[in-house]
Amino acid sequence: MIFLDNASTTKPDEQIINNFVNYQKYFFNPGANYSPSVFINSLVEKARAEIVRNLGGSKNGTFIFTSSSSIANNIIINSVVSNNKNEEYIFSSLEHPSVMNFATKLLQDGKKVLFAPTTSDGFVDEKALFSMINQNTKFVSVINVSNETGACNNVNFIAKRIKEINPKTLVHSDGVQALGKVEINLENLDFYTISSHKIYGLKGVAGFYAKNVKTLKPFVFGGEQEFNILSGTINAPMIFCLRDSVKDAVINQKENYKHALKLNMLLRKKLEDIENLVINSPSLEAENNSTSNFGCSPYVLSVSVLNLNAETLQNMLSEKEIYIGLGSACSAKKSGNKVLESMHKSKAEILGNIRISLSKNTTTEEIETFASELKLCINQLREKLKWKKLY
Amino acid sequence: MIFLDNASTTKPDEQIINNFVNYQKYFFNPGANYSPSVFINSLVEKARAEIVRNLGGSKNGTFIFTSSSSIANNIIINSVVSNNKNEEYIFSSLEHPSVMNFATKLLQDGKKVLFAPTTSDGFVDEKALFSMINQNTKFVSVINVSNETGACNNVNFIAKRIKEINPKTLVHSDGVQALGKVEINLENLDFYTISSHKIYGLKGVAGFYAKNVKTLKPFVFGGEQEFNILSGTINAPMIFCLRDSVKDAVINQKENYKHALKLNMLLRKKLEDIENLVINSPSLEAENNSTSNFGCSPYVLSVSVLNLNAETLQNMLSEKEIYIGLGSACSAKKSGNKVLESMHKSKAEILGNIRISLSKNTTTEEIETFASELKLCINQLREKLKWKKLY
Repeated sequence: MIFLDNASTTKPDEQIINNFVNYQKYFFNPGANYSPSVFINSLVEKARAEIVRNLGGSKNGTFIFTSSSSIANNIIINSVVSNNKNEEYIFSSLEHPSVMNFATKLLQDGKKVLFAPTTSDGFVDEKALFSMINQNTKFVSVINVSNETGACNNVNFIAKRIKEINPKTLVHSDGVQALGKVEINLENLDFYTISSHKIYGLKGVAGFYAKNVKTLKPFVFGGEQEFNILSGTINAPMIFCLRDSVKDAVINQKENYKHALKLNMLLRKKLEDIENLVINSPSLEAENNSTSNFGCSPYVLSVSVLNLNAETLQNMLSEKEIYIGLGSACSAKKSGNKVLESMHKSKAEILGNIRISLSKNTTTEEIETFASELKLCINQLREKLKWKKLY
Repeated sequence: MIFLDNASTTKPDEQIINNFVNYQKYFFNPGANYSPSVFINSLVEKARAEIVRNLGGSKNGTFIFTSSSSIANNIIINSVVSNNKNEEYIFSSLEHPSVMNFATKLLQDGKKVLFAPTTSDGFVDEKALFSMINQNTKFVSVINVSNETGACNNVNFIAKRIKEINPKTLVHSDGVQALGKVEINLENLDFYTISSHKIYGLKGVAGFYAKNVKTLKPFVFGGEQEFNILSGTINAPMIFCLRDSVKDAVINQKENYKHALKLNMLLRKKLEDIENLVINSPSLEAENNSTSNFGCSPYVLSVSVLNLNAETLQNMLSEKEIYIGLGSACSAKKSGNKVLESMHKSKAEILGNIRISLSKNTTTEEIETFASELKLCINQLREKLKWKKLY
């Protein structure tokens, strides 16, 4: 089995699974007053602070634990939206569906929602974005690393520049594909979302950094847990697992980056001689003298095989136990690909779009096998189409 | 260690923890198109149907997986509330904070929210409730088993009667303290909430039965998972664990009930000779000829030790490694006890209120030790107060 859809989810580390089992001794409800609960609650608060530290957040910042990054993104957006009709909310066109579909809903509700355009190489168009900021701009959301192409936006610089224009604007970045993969910098950000299951941790725990907890509003009403933002019994074992996964991700980021970079370069090289194959991801290295272009995460490679249906290709590879993505697998019902559309990609490029995403555990051999199997599949499909005079 | 706060959370079964570890092989994203994901997605759909069957739900009904019962309750309420100013929403005064605090928020927002009163023995006042139903009644929520006293409302009968008055009224019951503890009947209910960690399962998974998925509205926007109600990557391993816990709960309900009943009767007997101790829970057996009073769950016993501070008592017992509850521990910041207040309990009864809640693993010896240690603590505290001339 060769798993190359790690941007969709990652296989959890054995160590994390073992930790989860050990942490079941902390089954007590941290909301209770007796000593084991009080002790576990103190461990939860320590984990919260440790995650903020490992993310490089502000000392006064905090971390809100959620069950998924989708709910984390929804909590953030729900917190900033008000009934003030002058307020404007700006979203990049690269956002994950959990941001984008909420933004679309707000637009339908009559809110002033604006979408910043994308450059042809897949970054948020900074110039256009900055020109949209004014005294009514309440909120801006720019994804750190695109889950579709790996394009890495310099979100810290973007936030700094936005705040120079309007210091009151709150800036969020979805860092789900960035943490542990690329270097991150939260200095100028108000909110930053992360997820456990994208960094070799368990599904069911995620959350977000908030520079100032007072900017948040209740999302789930109940027992007032998580600063009364997200009520529900505190899931201590899962929280401890997230703490461990974040620690591992941060400690090993540089070393894993080198490994992924080597594999990504190898993969790009192997794909060079495939006819009519377009690489949608930007160059790996950041552009000189560019404030925006931070290069590409080596963990994601988006390519389009022209005049072929990506789904057919995915199925053929699946039969060989090679698993790749079709753009975002986060969406249960896909309808086109809004990110590639925002890059003004052609219909053929969108129809033939596959996403290969690596993990720290991906090997050189796996990349080599994948590249040759992909070539075989493409040739086979094209032969069939030639015979049908369709290619 | 004697753990008698099982209404707050239960220790997960070893078997469930083992299952969770084994289910990690299903780490693939069920939203993807390749074969392992397609297979896992089919298992998730089977688990959904199995849970509906085990709950005794309608064939056309479904089950929505959530990360907590608090969010489940919030999703249900959010679904039924509209901008129609004539619509009325009725809540029993026994609801869990995840229902009650949302209801209070709706009231503040100007919605027509009504609270049905409680009888002195802790049941929803049926007569009063039925008199509140009219053609504008959109929604009624009545908890199945009270987490405070164990009082068991005959929610299926209540739903039937409500629908005789207004067939369009949607009826919800929070079954978190009922599933696996007492017999449940969902026949006339539209929604029914359950939670894994109250039935010896893991924290982080819960959900609700919905008779008709079309009555639901999106709560978290994103990849459109869970019928576009609650977006976020499907957590297959956790879902399979919930399926297993529900199955165990249903299969073993009768046998465990007998065990809990025996212990509860023993406990009530042991407490008889404590001076100035009031039992807030109703009688264990259902009243003859009563349609409402379904008796009391044997898993919960609420008592008030008059003229003593329950928190002091809880701390003294905690030092002996005996852990009891103070009413609902689901609330991070407690302010009084709304359920006991609705029963018109006195200040002294509320201040001295402790909740003892059993599990299938509680032993006769534990109940005996607890009862004698409780007596010791009460006597010790009262001696101290006598000396201070306060008792």
